Amino acid sequence: MSAALSALIAELPDGTVVTDPDILASYRQDRARDPDAGTPLAVVRPRRTEEVQTVLRWANAHRVPVVPRGAGTGLSGGASALDGGIVLSTEKMRDITVDPVTRTAVVQPGLLNAEVKQAAAEHGLWYPPDPSSFEICSIGGNIATNAGGLCCVKYGVTTDYVMGLQVVLADGTAVRLGGPRIKDVAGLPLTKLFVGSEGTLGVVTEVTLRLLPPQHQASTVVATFASVEAAAESVLAITARIRPSMLEFMDAVAINAVEDKLRMGLDRSAAAMMVAASDDRGPAGAEDAEFMAQVFTEHGATEVFSTADPDEGEAFVAARRFAIPAVEAKGALLLEDVGVPLPALADLVGGVARLADHHELTISVIAHAGDGNTHPLIVYDPADAAMAERAAQAFGEIMELAIDLGGTITGEHGVGRLKRPWLADQIGPEAMELHRRIKDALDPNGILNPGAGF
Amino acid sequence: MSAALSALIAELPDGTVVTDPDILASYRQDRARDPDAGTPLAVVRPRRTEEVQTVLRWANAHRVPVVPRGAGTGLSGGASALDGGIVLSTEKMRDITVDPVTRTAVVQPGLLNAEVKQAAAEHGLWYPPDPSSFEICSIGGNIATNAGGLCCVKYGVTTDYVMGLQVVLADGTAVRLGGPRIKDVAGLPLTKLFVGSEGTLGVVTEVTLRLLPPQHQASTVVATFASVEAAAESVLAITARIRPSMLEFMDAVAINAVEDKLRMGLDRSAAAMMVAASDDRGPAGAEDAEFMAQVFTEHGATEVFSTADPDEGEAFVAARRFAIPAVEAKGALLLEDVGVPLPALADLVGGVARLADHHELTISVIAHAGDGNTHPLIVYDPADAAMAERAAQAFGEIMELAIDLGGTITGEHGVGRLKRPWLADQIGPEAMELHRRIKDALDPNGILNPGAGF
Repeated sequence: MSAALSALIAELPDGTVVTDPDILASYRQDRARDPDAGTPLAVVRPRRTEEVQTVLRWANAHRVPVVPRGAGTGLSGGASALDGGIVLSTEKMRDITVDPVTRTAVVQPGLLNAEVKQAAAEHGLWYPPDPSSFEICSIGGNIATNAGGLCCVKYGVTTDYVMGLQVVLADGTAVRLGGPRIKDVAGLPLTKLFVGSEGTLGVVTEVTLRLLPPQHQASTVVATFASVEAAAESVLAITARIRPSMLEFMDAVAINAVEDKLRMGLDRSAAAMMVAASDDRGPAGAEDAEFMAQVFTEHGATEVFSTADPDEGEAFVAARRFAIPAVEAKGALLLEDVGVPLPALADLVGGVARLADHHELTISVIAHAGDGNTHPLIVYDPADAAMAERAAQAFGEIMELAIDLGGTITGEHGVGRLKRPWLADQIGPEAMELHRRIKDALDPNGILNPGAGF
Repeated sequence: MSAALSALIAELPDGTVVTDPDILASYRQDRARDPDAGTPLAVVRPRRTEEVQTVLRWANAHRVPVVPRGAGTGLSGGASALDGGIVLSTEKMRDITVDPVTRTAVVQPGLLNAEVKQAAAEHGLWYPPDPSSFEICSIGGNIATNAGGLCCVKYGVTTDYVMGLQVVLADGTAVRLGGPRIKDVAGLPLTKLFVGSEGTLGVVTEVTLRLLPPQHQASTVVATFASVEAAAESVLAITARIRPSMLEFMDAVAINAVEDKLRMGLDRSAAAMMVAASDDRGPAGAEDAEFMAQVFTEHGATEVFSTADPDEGEAFVAARRFAIPAVEAKGALLLEDVGVPLPALADLVGGVARLADHHELTISVIAHAGDGNTHPLIVYDPADAAMAERAAQAFGEIMELAIDLGGTITGEHGVGRLKRPWLADQIGPEAMELHRRIKDALDPNGILNPGAGF
């Protein structure tokens, strides 16, 4: 062990720095399973802001790269370890205080999204953002990626709920940004700059979140279609008129994969299935559901089922949530996250199908359709090198397709390391240069998550 | 005229650069009437992004300060002209295209907020942010200050509706950020960085705005109180449970000033009046109104009036919107914009009353109470130097009071030039240093709105 690392260990409470090779190995990758992930020098698990400051001050002085890590559920390799670097895991930072009077929560980054929801619910309040991984992903990771989810079509994404942050900068300076003030325009909107910055500008050590009164019971509508285009057209007809609380899409592969596992009687012959909901209060929710059912019917839905029963509705939402694990049963997944402006949804899904044909791959598309945010799931066998190569090829070509359609390479997962080669194609050289200027200003030695984000 | 300015005039279409002293004089101040405003070298009124690039390239080369200006309705002196500088007015940039399918609008910055609302309404859509000045303020100015308004308590502020920007940087580079993609986390959230940056980081030349389906008819509740504390307590009881679409406060001075002008039968003896509304659809809105009426009654309201009639409701909203002009009839105003966490609302109003007594001034407080964002209106006579001095003193002390209560010096107007001396007290030296680093990275010569914002 280097003298430098020994000095860091000595500066931090016992057990904060881990160098056991077996443990290090378990921190090499996040759920993106980045094949190029390195082996870190150490994993550091601080409990307090001051300890994070110590780590960054040390890393900045020694020019050691630091990869911040939440719960390790990232899907773009944003938390892939670097050889000789530090993995700074926030998993031990788990305090939360809910203030029901101001409807806010002050949270440390290591708490899981589901735990934040639970703590809010204990006070009769609701934290909306709901990534599919909400039971296992951390709030700090949600902030790093500006995570979305299913209800975001109506309720917005993580950044819409972040009122304030404490952030430790690359040089170890701790800075407080924003706070429990609903409106506050004093100075630059720096709180917002850090939400979605993927650990490249600082390490968030405390968050002030805005909570809402509880969600009302939703009315749910499920519809199957013989064509993807018809389903996509129905999305436009719905979002032009109302604000559903969920508007999800599954393709034939996903429908069948879910049916294989759950045996709930889904129509295996359908080309697409929509799961939609409205949580508007009282009869309004049921009216919305009726409107959506009517739109689905007018767009040629083969079957339409509406329910105001929460358990029945939840079964279909669960089916949608289960789509990724169900497709994963067919092989390893490269999980895409491209988004397009809503009118391009059918073109994107059709283009993905053509790429699947061309590369002789199974690619299932599920989507937060109301947001234009899709998750093409590329199924492959890692033991089959040629197939893995074709999958990697398709992964890139799907991003190129999204860019051609005026879309984004990532709607909610982040760029991480896996999507970085495509970022410049989307945002252009001027925006890339603007990123570089801000990075240089905040992290001149480039120690924070180098290689990730941009 | 300098050779440099002649060169700029030659580079731009005829009439774009104005040097007529009478016209220059009309661009010296915004509505904050900053006494320290300078006299610009020229006013430039470009029509296209390329012309803005020409202006900034020229200004950067010659180190000439540029003050971006929307409609000149700013209340913090963000658009005060500088001696020898350029005022870059966006007033001629007035194009708009609404896409009802994607519920978006692409807008040039000079269009007024009301014109954006109108263009959206022509497609059956709604642009929510509604600063009181919505009929005369520009969308570019709204973006510069991240403007709020009355419906923001439920619908959020300007930044929540900005999906993309075209921005010209200090060196004349034009960069596109974001776009018509509902979810997009590719790269840093730079769109957000520019919303609320008060013209200090770049000049916005095009905006992509998110629009909503039309607002539903609101139910309105008006209540008067014998004490400010009781009114403030009712705010907490309401926002802990429901999401009203408006929750406004007026103090006794404002009530009487409005009644002087409008003679609508307001209770002149009341210490406070609340104007609240819910636009939840169908019976839910009426239920919310009933709940709020009940909360007001339980908190000792002296009179409570509910109506589902939109004209009746609108009369009270108009009364609230009329409060500033009504108080202005009593003298010149220093218009404050401080905000506090909701539980501190009564303390803030009480503290302002003590400052008014101490300085022998009339200070009326109106507030977007549901946001904790207040507008203390300091009435003074500019011809009375001693009184003007006391008013200036109170202006600063109100900000100090807000900071002491964990609040902000500006909830929605921006820091501009008038509030700048208090910013560091609110956000602290670390955050100030972070601002400086970003400014230096983006505008190394400091030509963009120097002296404003931070």
